[in-house]
Amino acid sequence: MNKNGGERALTITTKNSPFSIEDTEPLLPWLSSFGQSEGGGVSRLLYTPSWLEAQLALKQKMEQSGLHTYFDSVGNLFGRLEGKQDTVTILTGSHIDSVINGGKYDGTYGIIASFLAAQLVYQKYGKPKKNIEVVSLCEEEGSRFPLTFWGSGNITGKYSITDANNIHDANSVSLRTAMNEADFNPEHYQSPVRKDLEAFIELHVEQGIILDRTRTSLGIVDSIVGQRRFTVQISGESNHAGTTPMSYRKDSLYFASKYIYFLTNKAMKLDQDLVITAGKMNVMPNTPNVIPGNAEFTLDIRHHDEAVLETFCNEARHTLDQMAKELTMCAKMSKWLDIKPVPMNTPLTALATKIAKEQQISYRKLMSGAGHDAQVFGEYCPTALLFVPSKDGISHSPKEFTNKADLENGVRILTEFLYQLAY
Amino acid sequence: MNKNGGERALTITTKNSPFSIEDTEPLLPWLSSFGQSEGGGVSRLLYTPSWLEAQLALKQKMEQSGLHTYFDSVGNLFGRLEGKQDTVTILTGSHIDSVINGGKYDGTYGIIASFLAAQLVYQKYGKPKKNIEVVSLCEEEGSRFPLTFWGSGNITGKYSITDANNIHDANSVSLRTAMNEADFNPEHYQSPVRKDLEAFIELHVEQGIILDRTRTSLGIVDSIVGQRRFTVQISGESNHAGTTPMSYRKDSLYFASKYIYFLTNKAMKLDQDLVITAGKMNVMPNTPNVIPGNAEFTLDIRHHDEAVLETFCNEARHTLDQMAKELTMCAKMSKWLDIKPVPMNTPLTALATKIAKEQQISYRKLMSGAGHDAQVFGEYCPTALLFVPSKDGISHSPKEFTNKADLENGVRILTEFLYQLAY
Repeated sequence: MNKNGGERALTITTKNSPFSIEDTEPLLPWLSSFGQSEGGGVSRLLYTPSWLEAQLALKQKMEQSGLHTYFDSVGNLFGRLEGKQDTVTILTGSHIDSVINGGKYDGTYGIIASFLAAQLVYQKYGKPKKNIEVVSLCEEEGSRFPLTFWGSGNITGKYSITDANNIHDANSVSLRTAMNEADFNPEHYQSPVRKDLEAFIELHVEQGIILDRTRTSLGIVDSIVGQRRFTVQISGESNHAGTTPMSYRKDSLYFASKYIYFLTNKAMKLDQDLVITAGKMNVMPNTPNVIPGNAEFTLDIRHHDEAVLETFCNEARHTLDQMAKELTMCAKMSKWLDIKPVPMNTPLTALATKIAKEQQISYRKLMSGAGHDAQVFGEYCPTALLFVPSKDGISHSPKEFTNKADLENGVRILTEFLYQLAY
Repeated sequence: MNKNGGERALTITTKNSPFSIEDTEPLLPWLSSFGQSEGGGVSRLLYTPSWLEAQLALKQKMEQSGLHTYFDSVGNLFGRLEGKQDTVTILTGSHIDSVINGGKYDGTYGIIASFLAAQLVYQKYGKPKKNIEVVSLCEEEGSRFPLTFWGSGNITGKYSITDANNIHDANSVSLRTAMNEADFNPEHYQSPVRKDLEAFIELHVEQGIILDRTRTSLGIVDSIVGQRRFTVQISGESNHAGTTPMSYRKDSLYFASKYIYFLTNKAMKLDQDLVITAGKMNVMPNTPNVIPGNAEFTLDIRHHDEAVLETFCNEARHTLDQMAKELTMCAKMSKWLDIKPVPMNTPLTALATKIAKEQQISYRKLMSGAGHDAQVFGEYCPTALLFVPSKDGISHSPKEFTNKADLENGVRILTEFLYQLAY
């Protein structure tokens, strides 16, 4: 397959130009048709045929609408609106890959919105001063390979081709082989690191419930949370459920229950932005008439402030030790993930606020509890992350939904954003 | 294989008679050698070759020591010391079957002790007034077939041969086929229900930790606990661990933790004889970064007083409903086991107490938190259940251990018991 798309006949059913804000909603099912299953879910994993088909269809649409297009070495697709000064670039976009059986909005919406905003700003104001580039990032989800942010990571220098060695998918296909099969030959890799980025703006569906619950059209992200993950192991004593008096027991599940109850309450009282989750729990021997000798569970702890995170995690460890002493059992807490919070650029979030006010679009500041490409760009160049609502907070599901008005408000905001930054 | 044992050469290494109290300890490894694995564990499942071998070896030993032996239709083995009046019978014994990879004491000790007590009382006092029978009950554990107390159940009329229909082991061998293979032909079944039983006395290892912890030689069981088992299902909402604020969550594991913590505390305060165990817990989807939407766990609740059991179980249900309302989640509690408490015979436990005092053997009253054949007999005829200590409360394990002094004290008590009842 040729990545210039010349040999492929792609069914493109929507019009080519000029585009209007009304095209936002129809373009979503169009782009989601690549990799869509009969049940309506979308599976578009990095370097698979449906992924490549989507990128090539987008490329063709960008070209037909007047953007100059190109792929970088890892398959990030760019659509460029050349600036008059051609010195720095305002980059906007999101990721084209999906989770397995995901929805039509996650990632896809940010690409469509960026594409439309570039069209609309050009229609209204002509050629910009600075370059505007729309990007369809090759990978963010980590659904095929045990690695995330392959797209933004290559643009920002977090990753390079050497990181593709020794990474394999579930069928033992290496990342290098998969790249090559999609016609991105690792041997021809040239660093896609961009030195010309003045800002990156990502528009994304919230994947959370706050905007929907509060009937707010726009979320302006202050920061992307840091997260730490732990496994807690409790060792008590397996014993007969009938013959062991309560006072003689070392019941690991009782310990785990007490701990989860107290720690969750503590988190709820401490700070409304702190979230903690015991998501995975396994009990041994897991038999109705045996006191559980061992319990193991995970803790996922997130906050946008590294100091709060650090303090709370220390307290979590201290509480565990105290409880272990009190209940005369052993407990161990091991950290296996530690991602620092990434603040978004303050002038950019201020600009987003100003635009939302001017356009009388309801907005609120929030943090992102989920990871996004914006967190990779946020450590590299001034970055803004904007959300539109997700109905019932649903994401990574064919049930993802955002209504027409919110989708279009997002494009309006982004259009003005590009004007303010690039003209 | 012929159940009269005539065709089998059994290696019997201990002497045949006269027996003394000193034989208690050596007879245990002898009987446990049938069905013993290289690792020292004992697996002697109902109607298997090792089970039959053990019963036949016992039969031979009983005969050589002067007892009249016979099997009933389901394979309970009896050794009879004929009384002068030959009207009623004092029955004593325990079960010959074991769990998979069990120890040398569970069941086996009660048979050996009964055999020796019958020898010793005869040596000392001659022929009894009433019949004394030693019984090696065919099955109690339920380790091969999904049914327990097959031995005592047939003697007391709880079961008959029709209950053997449609019961199969893990290899799809029916209970009827297994009986037949051990030469107990179900077609020749004659009811083993006994109308002549004046008392049943079972001596058993505690399988709990109370006697060992309190350094007591003898446990005199007041009653065998009733037990109820429930499955509790909690339905919340699976959601993103990062993007769902704490106040919006319906976290089923938080609910389960809170409930287990509170209910366990309530039980501990209410009554020291009440035991409750959440032994099995499964959480869905059981993923570190997803709020658990569903949690399911079991509750095993035991007490010797049906009224306490009833009140506490009602309270458990009420607390669950209250918490479900408070946390706006759904919770369901389904009962799948309900065994009533069985009190032991008061004059018999008084007699045991009197004997222990006279013999200056340390004793304490306790309840049995585990099930025993004595609970089946307890609903049929006057029954006593006596315990000797289990080191560290260990049972159903090759590590089961009871020291020589305690083993012998049990035999002494039982000998006197038989004298008091049968002479």
